[in-house]
Amino acid sequence: MREKENLTLLGNQQTEYSMDYNPSVLEAFQNKHPENDYFVKFNCPEFTSLCPITGQPDFATITISYVPDERLVESKSLKLYLFSFRNHGDFHEDVINIIMKDLVKLLEPKYIEVWGKFLPRGGLSIDPYCNYGKPGTDWEQVAWNRMSNHDMFPERVDNR
Amino acid sequence: MREKENLTLLGNQQTEYSMDYNPSVLEAFQNKHPENDYFVKFNCPEFTSLCPITGQPDFATITISYVPDERLVESKSLKLYLFSFRNHGDFHEDVINIIMKDLVKLLEPKYIEVWGKFLPRGGLSIDPYCNYGKPGTDWEQVAWNRMSNHDMFPERVDNR
Amino acid sequence: MREKENLTLLGNQQTEYSMDYNPSVLEAFQNKHPENDYFVKFNCPEFTSLCPITGQPDFATITISYVPDERLVESKSLKLYLFSFRNHGDFHEDVINIIMKDLVKLLEPKYIEVWGKFLPRGGLSIDPYCNYGKPGTDWEQVAWNRMSNHDMFPERVDNR
Amino acid sequence: MREKENLTLLGNQQTEYSMDYNPSVLEAFQNKHPENDYFVKFNCPEFTSLCPITGQPDFATITISYVPDERLVESKSLKLYLFSFRNHGDFHEDVINIIMKDLVKLLEPKYIEVWGKFLPRGGLSIDPYCNYGKPGTDWEQVAWNRMSNHDMFPERVDNR
Amino acid sequence: MREKENLTLLGNQQTEYSMDYNPSVLEAFQNKHPENDYFVKFNCPEFTSLCPITGQPDFATITISYVPDERLVESKSLKLYLFSFRNHGDFHEDVINIIMKDLVKLLEPKYIEVWGKFLPRGGLSIDPYCNYGKPGTDWEQVAWNRMSNHDMFPERVDNR
Amino acid sequence: MREKENLTLLGNQQTEYSMDYNPSVLEAFQNKHPENDYFVKFNCPEFTSLCPITGQPDFATITISYVPDERLVESKSLKLYLFSFRNHGDFHEDVINIIMKDLVKLLEPKYIEVWGKFLPRGGLSIDPYCNYGKPGTDWEQVAWNRMSNHDMFPERVDNR
Amino acid sequence: MREKENLTLLGNQQTEYSMDYNPSVLEAFQNKHPENDYFVKFNCPEFTSLCPITGQPDFATITISYVPDERLVESKSLKLYLFSFRNHGDFHEDVINIIMKDLVKLLEPKYIEVWGKFLPRGGLSIDPYCNYGKPGTDWEQVAWNRMSNHDMFPERVDNR
Amino acid sequence: MREKENLTLLGNQQTEYSMDYNPSVLEAFQNKHPENDYFVKFNCPEFTSLCPITGQPDFATITISYVPDERLVESKSLKLYLFSFRNHGDFHEDVINIIMKDLVKLLEPKYIEVWGKFLPRGGLSIDPYCNYGKPGTDWEQVAWNRMSNHDMFPERVDNR
Amino acid sequence: MREKENLTLLGNQQTEYSMDYNPSVLEAFQNKHPENDYFVKFNCPEFTSLCPITGQPDFATITISYVPDERLVESKSLKLYLFSFRNHGDFHEDVINIIMKDLVKLLEPKYIEVWGKFLPRGGLSIDPYCNYGKPGTDWEQVAWNRMSNHDMFPERVDNR
Amino acid sequence: MREKENLTLLGNQQTEYSMDYNPSVLEAFQNKHPENDYFVKFNCPEFTSLCPITGQPDFATITISYVPDERLVESKSLKLYLFSFRNHGDFHEDVINIIMKDLVKLLEPKYIEVWGKFLPRGGLSIDPYCNYGKPGTDWEQVAWNRMSNHDMFPERVDNR
Ligand SMILES: [Ca+2]
Ligand SMILES: [Ca+2]
Ligand SMILES: [Ca+2]
Ligand SMILES: [Ca+2]
Ligand SMILES: [Ca+2]
Ligand SMILES: [Ca+2]
Ligand SMILES: [Ca+2]
Ligand SMILES: [Ca+2]
Ligand SMILES: [Ca+2]
Ligand SMILES: [Ca+2]
Ligand SMILES: [Ca+2]
Ligand SMILES: [Ca+2]
Ligand SMILES: [Ca+2]
Ligand SMILES: [Ca+2]
Ligand SMILES: [Ca+2]
Ligand SMILES: [Ca+2]
Repeated sequence: MREKENLTLLGNQQTEYSMDYNPSVLEAFQNKHPENDYFVKFNCPEFTSLCPITGQPDFATITISYVPDERLVESKSLKLYLFSFRNHGDFHEDVINIIMKDLVKLLEPKYIEVWGKFLPRGGLSIDPYCNYGKPGTDWEQVAWNRMSNHDMFPERVDNR
Repeated sequence: MREKENLTLLGNQQTEYSMDYNPSVLEAFQNKHPENDYFVKFNCPEFTSLCPITGQPDFATITISYVPDERLVESKSLKLYLFSFRNHGDFHEDVINIIMKDLVKLLEPKYIEVWGKFLPRGGLSIDPYCNYGKPGTDWEQVAWNRMSNHDMFPERVDNR
Repeated sequence: MREKENLTLLGNQQTEYSMDYNPSVLEAFQNKHPENDYFVKFNCPEFTSLCPITGQPDFATITISYVPDERLVESKSLKLYLFSFRNHGDFHEDVINIIMKDLVKLLEPKYIEVWGKFLPRGGLSIDPYCNYGKPGTDWEQVAWNRMSNHDMFPERVDNR
Repeated sequence: MREKENLTLLGNQQTEYSMDYNPSVLEAFQNKHPENDYFVKFNCPEFTSLCPITGQPDFATITISYVPDERLVESKSLKLYLFSFRNHGDFHEDVINIIMKDLVKLLEPKYIEVWGKFLPRGGLSIDPYCNYGKPGTDWEQVAWNRMSNHDMFPERVDNR
Repeated sequence: MREKENLTLLGNQQTEYSMDYNPSVLEAFQNKHPENDYFVKFNCPEFTSLCPITGQPDFATITISYVPDERLVESKSLKLYLFSFRNHGDFHEDVINIIMKDLVKLLEPKYIEVWGKFLPRGGLSIDPYCNYGKPGTDWEQVAWNRMSNHDMFPERVDNR
Repeated sequence: MREKENLTLLGNQQTEYSMDYNPSVLEAFQNKHPENDYFVKFNCPEFTSLCPITGQPDFATITISYVPDERLVESKSLKLYLFSFRNHGDFHEDVINIIMKDLVKLLEPKYIEVWGKFLPRGGLSIDPYCNYGKPGTDWEQVAWNRMSNHDMFPERVDNR
Repeated sequence: MREKENLTLLGNQQTEYSMDYNPSVLEAFQNKHPENDYFVKFNCPEFTSLCPITGQPDFATITISYVPDERLVESKSLKLYLFSFRNHGDFHEDVINIIMKDLVKLLEPKYIEVWGKFLPRGGLSIDPYCNYGKPGTDWEQVAWNRMSNHDMFPERVDNR
Repeated sequence: MREKENLTLLGNQQTEYSMDYNPSVLEAFQNKHPENDYFVKFNCPEFTSLCPITGQPDFATITISYVPDERLVESKSLKLYLFSFRNHGDFHEDVINIIMKDLVKLLEPKYIEVWGKFLPRGGLSIDPYCNYGKPGTDWEQVAWNRMSNHDMFPERVDNR
Repeated sequence: MREKENLTLLGNQQTEYSMDYNPSVLEAFQNKHPENDYFVKFNCPEFTSLCPITGQPDFATITISYVPDERLVESKSLKLYLFSFRNHGDFHEDVINIIMKDLVKLLEPKYIEVWGKFLPRGGLSIDPYCNYGKPGTDWEQVAWNRMSNHDMFPERVDNR
Repeated sequence: MREKENLTLLGNQQTEYSMDYNPSVLEAFQNKHPENDYFVKFNCPEFTSLCPITGQPDFATITISYVPDERLVESKSLKLYLFSFRNHGDFHEDVINIIMKDLVKLLEPKYIEVWGKFLPRGGLSIDPYCNYGKPGTDWEQVAWNRMSNHDMFPERVDNR
């Protein structure tokens, strides 16, 4: 349960910032509204990692949207987790899949999707998107529907 | 019925503003168009509450959209109700669920949804969304459909 | 038929502007393309009426979108009709339902929807939406579908 | 076939500009990718015609979107065709239907839709939309689906 | 596999830029997440080719979105491939179909779509769109669904 | 002085709304910061009056910006004053000059400017601007400077 | 004087629209506020003329801003005047100078400036700007100052 | 000096949030670049206070921009200071002057300006602006110049 | 003089497009309004050249603004001239200076400025700006003033 | 001189990325246009450093604008230099002053300014700005003028 006494991270700024990929910082707490489904979306426009080949920094906006089952992710722990990619190198497509899988393991959510929008390199930008619906529930079909209708009205991008 | 003589709130500015969460200020009046369904949406870009852990102020835009059955919510009472969160502390996910449940109790609407878009803290922003369709009506299925297709074309957020 | 000789309103600026709600100014003319369905949308960003309680002016953008059957609404008569709300007092939810019902009576359209977006009062703005599909036609089902999927991607509003 | 030697219009600026409605300037050429469906959209933000009653100029953005069958419309001939409305008078609703029907006759496309967004006159603007799916094909159903879901998320218009 | 030692293109700026259409520069590498579907989108706002009739340069934003099966396209090779259209002449509709077919041959993806948005010539702009779903899989139906719902909420274009 | 007990307008919603031009509703109160200059700007996007020739409603955004001397204008009285133009007919150029002169008489400010931006009629919109600096002070020269540099970077207007 | 009885143009829609350049349609009326300077700006986003070489239509937004001396231009006559360029051919640079000179002749204003923003042809757009200050007055110097500081913060243009 | 050991506020989240106007929370530290002038701007879009008459919440974006002399304001203390207006009642014009005067007392800056942009109440919004230049320095003249050229190109506001 | 018979470029699409830097394509014609100063601005959002080191294509929006003396640049020749950079390699800073110097040689204008806004490479974009005022005229001082006040209110750029 | 053989950085991707503040990576090359002044602006929307107190990542857009004297900064070395702040901790105000001073030392430019716009922390964002004009030249006065007129028309910021 996210009670005042347990949430040391949120009320404590001496937190150590891990400098490489570290899924162990993720923390969860109990969902207080299990009787109805709801979405929680995180907007993370300050994500940064390194290119595994050239060592150059990459920048992205990551959007994480999920429907909790029994647990929610604690937001400050999510921030530390995302921060841990700062000096870590991975391809764009991998980063997005890895974030989703770490959160599936932590939360066992009904549904989750992760969308990355990376800044351009060499005139080209890459936006990977993955999702997951809990097997054996209606959310498995929702995941397929959302995947097959993904991004039908893409935003305009002009590299500037 | 929302008749001139009954609507003391709207024509009376001596209203006392409750300084902590107070669902009892909510008032309803009779729907004059029960023969056809219609949506009423409230845009509330001036919502503010407190973080239950740190006591810091949080800011959000709340959107409430519903299909009335027999009653509508009186808009000035809704404003007072939302104002009563001003010095109250609750997590983002809870605020949204609580607002929806208070309005379901008041209005017994055919359908309702509540979406909060909170300003960022620590580089991350959180946007919870919940909805409800009256059990045993077609709106129960609508609620599932709207939940499973929620926010498929998310707005761009850049923390600035 | 909208023929040159019949359309006195459009070519005549001595038109009297009715100062209170007056549905009798509405005029229709014959649809010249009855063999295929099409939409006609009116954007009316200059709507104004009075608050029935306080007498303060309210402002709105009204969008009217319909599929004609045998008749179209003459645009200048629609303008005069909307103008007639200028010194008339009614609640936001009622204004939208009344406009739709007056146009259903005039046009007997296959489909119609009316959406109002009112400027905020007290930090809150209200956007009602109603629609109608001709009973016994496929448009009845369309009306239900459009109602149940209404406004799933709401615009951002910031009161400024 | 759109081969270099045949496309006199595109490489020849002595073209005569017809000053009244003239569908005969439209030219088609052969679709080189008949084995797969694809959309071609034309954005035409510089359309202008005359009001049939007052003789005043009207301005519009016209969007034409179609799925070719055996023929494509040559773009310069389309430009001349649209230009031929310049001194021609017709109501907004008619202009859109006429353009669609002329292109259906020329191209016999699988699907086509035409959307006009006219600048306001007297504070009101009109946006007609029509479409067509080839009878006896799956595109007939697509036309109905697109018509019945048309413009569910209308753009904001403010006359300024 | 995209391993550091194999990706000579990404870490090597002496790459030769091919000056005419050259699909042979395209390179693929192995998908590391074959167990779940995901989308990868490329935004390419700097595409340029020549008009086959007049020799004038054309400019476009190309969006390529696909669901990988066994292989992903290497992003620097994709950039070189798109660059190879720079002094090559082809009609807008052909360019888009050709890009899609070359990528289908290279990747045999589950799904792919290519959308071009060309800058206006003579007041008119052209935006072709094509897609593909692997025959015999559910993605074949997805391709039809996405095609038949393509671009229902078109962006505003004003040539300026 | 704007003290709680004196400001009956602000705390009283039974205010009568005058239906024709009525400068007598304007009220002033004492400036509490006379030792330093400061600007106060009012944004009034809901102004409406009537065309003196045709009786048609006109709509405008009025911006009033002034540097107080001894008195400030009470904001609710300003609102009632602007409201009193609702059924009053005057040319755009006159409206702006009249508002400025009424406020000069009331406030004797150091400086004031009034800018109106009217919605288009017949494809043309009119934006008058006037200002005033107290004679015999440095603000007289400021008025000339601001007039002679007025609107050098005009906003884009597109009638839509 | 612009009095109700004299302004036949504004209250009369049988006005004939001149189809070629016709400065004689311009009409002026007396300035009622000669004691203070003020600006009047006209936004004209619907200007169209013909290219004198190719006969193709050109489109522009014209902004006219002036400080009246004894006379103001009547807005409907200005509209007819601008309309008279519709089938007239002139280069962009000439159109702007001609409009200014015709208005100087009509109004003998203290100051005037005319700015045209033409839609692109061949990927390039042209925006001419000219101004005038009455010789022998301070406005002559203002004209020089405004010319020498013209457009220092140009708007972004992207041909789309 | 802002050294790690002294900045308890920034590294300590147990800070108590004062619930009424409290200038004593403001803290300063030493300017490390006294040899050259520079501006520091704070954007504070989350300001909220109460209306002193009606008790209703007011919302504003406050911009504070200053040129330090010997001291800078510590950003977390500024946040607490602005937060202390949360349940405090004052008129818009007073809030801005008070903030400036408290910062002048704390920092004795070379120059400072404070601009508030309040959300509308009753269709009208108020934006006060004040500034200060250190007497006897060139910044005194800068303050006059900035005041006399303040806001010459005002932003567009539409209450929505 | 730009007379119909002399302007072969504008009415002739067989123009050869030079594939490398070629200032000789520039053509001028006589200024018909030498008695008054005026600005002519060209917006060129489709400029492209090559990086002299890597051979990669660079993209820019070029703005050219000048005050003619005796000659104007013919717009189609300007387009050909800009096109001739297409396969030419030069640094951003050089491209802008070269364009300005070629136009100074051709036109001997009173004043000219050239501003390039290049798309980002490696996360950084470069915007060079140069200008020129005819020596011995007031425009020499204007050039200094415009240079020293250049770009004081820079646009927001986000690489996306 | 920036000649092909000397610019190893631009044509060499094996560059090592320094992980802490490292001004020694900066490189300059010779200005080829010393006879005329011109501005070069760098837009750097991907800057990131660490908070010296909490260790949290900060994000900013940095704009660097300068007038070269004898030397220009090589853009890739600037990128490496800015990258070297990635794991370095400094206050916002210091970062901006340090960047300017390092570039003054390297380039001895006629003029330079550096503006940082940092993402919000705790609801507040900070935008420092500093500049420099070469002592004993006219640019010293320009620096004062630009400082004293800095940011008079601030952008809107809403933390979202
Ligand atoms: Ca951008
Ligand atoms: Ca924002
Ligand atoms: Ca807004
Ligand atoms: Ca906002
Ligand atoms: Ca607004
Ligand atoms: Ca507008
Ligand atoms: Ca544009
Ligand atoms: Ca435009
Ligand atoms: Ca507009
Ligand atoms: Ca608009
Ligand atoms: Ca554009
Ligand atoms: Ca545009
Ligand atoms: Ca707005
Ligand atoms: Ca951004
Ligand atoms: Ca962009
Ligand atoms: Ca933002």
